[in-house]
Amino acid sequence: MLVLRLLALGATLSATLIMVTSQDSAQVFNMKFEAKYTNSPTFKYFVLINAIASGYTFIILFFPSKSSYGHFILVLDLIIALLLDSSISACLAIGQVGKNGNSHAGWLPICGQVPKFCDHVKGSLIAGFVAAIVYFLILLYSLHNIINLFTLKT
Amino acid sequence: MLVLRLLALGATLSATLIMVTSQDSAQVFNMKFEAKYTNSPTFKYFVLINAIASGYTFIILFFPSKSSYGHFILVLDLIIALLLDSSISACLAIGQVGKNGNSHAGWLPICGQVPKFCDHVKGSLIAGFVAAIVYFLILLYSLHNIINLFTLKT
Repeated sequence: MLVLRLLALGATLSATLIMVTSQDSAQVFNMKFEAKYTNSPTFKYFVLINAIASGYTFIILFFPSKSSYGHFILVLDLIIALLLDSSISACLAIGQVGKNGNSHAGWLPICGQVPKFCDHVKGSLIAGFVAAIVYFLILLYSLHNIINLFTLKT
Repeated sequence: MLVLRLLALGATLSATLIMVTSQDSAQVFNMKFEAKYTNSPTFKYFVLINAIASGYTFIILFFPSKSSYGHFILVLDLIIALLLDSSISACLAIGQVGKNGNSHAGWLPICGQVPKFCDHVKGSLIAGFVAAIVYFLILLYSLHNIINLFTLKT
């Protein structure tokens, strides 16, 4: 369990940091074009959620999972898992448009102009994806500790 | 519990149907511009997940929650909740770009051209949001049935 928590801490922390440091600029037709994570509300949301998740994961390291707060932590874990899931999904959707564009809506892909930004975002999304998976495993593990998932009887 | 399940069924079903029937077209500079949910992979994902969730919710109505499958259903509920959460988040991110555009990336808002499509999508997103909330409540309720969440002792 400690391993999973540390893994989650690493993943959320790196997702936050990689996203915050992602920046690139391009010169298109004499117009300077700067790509930053703050340009998109979705990326800001991603940074916020991953920062909260890493803070939470860090604090929770000091609470043994067998403590009397066990049930409360399970619910908090569930909320964090849902938030991480939501932030990574939203960013993947935006990232997909950024990479491929959407010809129907007339949205052009931007990765050709700001490749460094896109690579950073990609790295951040991978870390965020790992974080979401790890939190899913944490949830399954906590549930398994409380109710044995492999038996059929309640 | 049955009320929550029926509510979830209604919400996922209407989210699917409203999204599938959303369609609008606009004439811009002699170019016909057709807005459909299939134009965006994110909206297709949303329809797929909500269709799966409504099918699952329908089937699960026939399994009493106190049955010996209780634990298994809890894990399935968790997966469905995460999938719904992910699909609604992704669509909200895309919908936000569709409504407001993103000037940094040069993506123009499209709701002015296809208002009927946007209204449909908005209705669908509200239904999807309700579905995600209801599934969160179902999870909390199931957890509470198995372990009393209001006591501190495991």
